[in-house]
Amino acid sequence: MQLVKASRDALLKPLTTVAGIVERRHTLPILANVLLKKEGDRVSFIATDIEVQITTHADFGADPGNESTTVAARKLLDILRALPDTDDVSLSHASNKLTVTAGRSRFALQTLSAAEFPTVAQPETWSASLSLPQKALRQLLNMVHFAMAVQDIRYYLNGMLLVFESNMASAVATDGHRLAFHAVSTGTVLAERQEVIIPRKTVLELLRLLEDTDEPVHVDVAGNQIRFRFGDIEFISKLVEGKFPDYKRVIPSGYAKEFDVEREHLLRTLQRIAIMTTDKFKGVRLQLADNVLRISANNAEQEEAQEELEILYNFDALDVGFNVSYLLDVLGNLKTDRVTWAMGDANSSALITVPEDQNFKYVVMPMRI
Amino acid sequence: MQLVKASRDALLKPLTTVAGIVERRHTLPILANVLLKKEGDRVSFIATDIEVQITTHADFGADPGNESTTVAARKLLDILRALPDTDDVSLSHASNKLTVTAGRSRFALQTLSAAEFPTVAQPETWSASLSLPQKALRQLLNMVHFAMAVQDIRYYLNGMLLVFESNMASAVATDGHRLAFHAVSTGTVLAERQEVIIPRKTVLELLRLLEDTDEPVHVDVAGNQIRFRFGDIEFISKLVEGKFPDYKRVIPSGYAKEFDVEREHLLRTLQRIAIMTTDKFKGVRLQLADNVLRISANNAEQEEAQEELEILYNFDALDVGFNVSYLLDVLGNLKTDRVTWAMGDANSSALITVPEDQNFKYVVMPMRI
Repeated sequence: MQLVKASRDALLKPLTTVAGIVERRHTLPILANVLLKKEGDRVSFIATDIEVQITTHADFGADPGNESTTVAARKLLDILRALPDTDDVSLSHASNKLTVTAGRSRFALQTLSAAEFPTVAQPETWSASLSLPQKALRQLLNMVHFAMAVQDIRYYLNGMLLVFESNMASAVATDGHRLAFHAVSTGTVLAERQEVIIPRKTVLELLRLLEDTDEPVHVDVAGNQIRFRFGDIEFISKLVEGKFPDYKRVIPSGYAKEFDVEREHLLRTLQRIAIMTTDKFKGVRLQLADNVLRISANNAEQEEAQEELEILYNFDALDVGFNVSYLLDVLGNLKTDRVTWAMGDANSSALITVPEDQNFKYVVMPMRI
Repeated sequence: MQLVKASRDALLKPLTTVAGIVERRHTLPILANVLLKKEGDRVSFIATDIEVQITTHADFGADPGNESTTVAARKLLDILRALPDTDDVSLSHASNKLTVTAGRSRFALQTLSAAEFPTVAQPETWSASLSLPQKALRQLLNMVHFAMAVQDIRYYLNGMLLVFESNMASAVATDGHRLAFHAVSTGTVLAERQEVIIPRKTVLELLRLLEDTDEPVHVDVAGNQIRFRFGDIEFISKLVEGKFPDYKRVIPSGYAKEFDVEREHLLRTLQRIAIMTTDKFKGVRLQLADNVLRISANNAEQEEAQEELEILYNFDALDVGFNVSYLLDVLGNLKTDRVTWAMGDANSSALITVPEDQNFKYVVMPMRI
C-alpha cells in the first residue's frame, strides 16, 4: 500500500524532526527505525530511544485505509536528501519492503513490523500543565544548557533542573564546578510547585526543535514523564530521578566587589590567554587593583601570557584563579554587550550577571593557581 | 633583540605558509618549531619535517643585526590568530624566550636554539631545471591527486609520479585499483627525460600553496631531491625511491563501446545508489543496453537501489561492476559538464575521459558483483 506521496522537501521536514533522537548504534535494532503510521490522509512519524519519543504528523496519505511499518530512519533521510529537490516521492509498503520511488530512482528498504515498535506508554492524566511561548522556553534552556555535566557519575547532573512555580519557570544546570540559573515568566499560574530534572538529550533536542516564535508550547508533567507539545510536534521524555543540588544556597548574594566589562573584549582576551593553558591545567589568574584587570596564565614549560584590561574598580586588590573553560563557556553563550562580575574574596565563588536580565545568574568556583 | 615588527596580518602570511608541514606530534621536539632567521631587514621563516622543507621571507626586521631562534609554530600561529587584526605585533628574543607583544598583550614562549634546527642539505648543482606557470602545475597535481594511495605498503604508490619530457610535464597517481593521468605543456624544452615520485604530503602542500596565476614556478631535480620555487616560497622535498607502475601499459586504447554523459547527473545518481552500499562492499552494477544506463546496488539485507539514465548507446549490452568510491572520486574532482566513458568487455577496465582535454585519462578496474 502507498503510505506517502509528497514532495521531497515536504517529506524531509517531519523525518528530520523526529530522526534527531535516533541513535546510530543501539542494542535494539528497531530503535534505528522510524515508525510510519498512516491513518487515512494523516501520516504520523514517530521515533524513540526509549527515554525520549518524538511524534509529528503530516497530511500525506495517498490511498485510503490504514497501514503502519518501520524503516531505518537515517537511511531513508540519506536517500531523500540525495534526491533532486524537484521530484515527488512515493513510499509504498509490501512484502516487508518499503519502496521509495522518485523520478527514475527506486529504492527498496527492509522494514520491521510496526507492532514491534516500543512506543512510550503515556499516563492517563497529567498532574500539572502549563503553557509558555516557544521562544521563552527556548531562551530558558539556551541560557543554562552549557553548564550541564557530561557523563558524570552523579547522573542527575547530566540534565537540567526545571522549576515551575506560580507564574515562573526556572532552569538550573551545574557540573559541580559552576552553575547557571535562568528564569522566565509563563502564561500559567500553577497552584503547586513542580520540580523535575530533564535529561541532557531532551534539552539538546528541544533546543534543536523549538522555534523563536510566540506560538505556545504546552508542558505536562506526571510521574516520571514530561510532555512538550508545540507546532506539529509531541515530545515525551522520561525524567531523571535524584536530588538536584540546592541552587539557592549556591548562588551568592551581597558581594561588595564588583566590576563591569565589555563581554566580547573579555572573551577574546581569555581566548588568547587560554592558548598558554593545557588540557591538564586550565587555570588563569585574575588580578584586580586600581581600575586594572590583569589576566595571566603560565604552563609547565615556563611560558606565560598576560594582558591588561581597563575597568572601573576601586575596591581592595584581589588575586584569584579560575578554570578558563568555565569563563569562556558563559561569555561565549551570552549575547549581551556587557557583563557584571561580582566577588567576595579569593576563596569565594564569582557571580556573573548581565545588566539586561536580573533572572540570569552564573556562579563559578575559584581554583588554586 | 627584536626579530620582527609587523602588522598581525603581514606576520600571519609567512607563518601560515610554512606551518602547514609542521607535524603536531613528532619524536624530535624541534620539528614542532619554526626557524626565524633575521638578517638585517630580511626575516626568513623555515619549517621542516625532514622530508619536506618550506622557506619564505619577509622584510620585517626592525633592529639592525642578525639573530635566529626557533619557536613552537602552531602556538605562535594560534596567538597571532587570536590577536585583534588591528594590532602591530613585535617578536623579541632574549634569555631563551620569544616575547610576543601586541597592544596590552604579552606572551613569553620557550625557544630552542636555531643551531639545533635540522635544515635540509641542498645539492650544489641540480641535474635538471624547468619552469611552468603556477596554475599549470596546480592543475596537473589537482587532476590526479585523489588517486594516490594512502598508507599502502607499496610506499611508492603513496605519492605521485611526475614525468618531465621534451616540453611536457605529466603526472600519474594510482592505488592499484584505479589510475589517473594528466599532462600539461611547460615553458622549457628538456634534453633528457626526468621521472620522479614525489611524496603524498608534498603534493597536498603544493596544492595548498600554489596559486592560480601565470607567475612561474621553477622546478629543479637532483639526486633524491626536488625543489619548487614560486613567489616568496622555496619548497624542497625528498623524492620517493621505487619503481612506479608502467602507466602506459595500464591506460587502454581502442575501446569501441563508448558513451557520453552529463557529469553532475551521473555523480548525483551514483551518490544516491551508494547509500545502499556498505563500507565492506562498495560495489555498484552498471548495465548498458539500447540507450539506457541502469545503475543498481544491493546489500546483505536484501535492500536495493536502482536508477536509469538515458544515454546514447547502440553497442552490445554490457553488465559490469565497479567500486562506487572510485567513480565518485573522479566525477567529484572533475569540473567539466560531460565525461566520456569507454569500455571493452565486462572484465576490462573502464576509461573515463573529458571532451575538453585529451591529456586527462582515468582508468578504473571492474569488480565482481
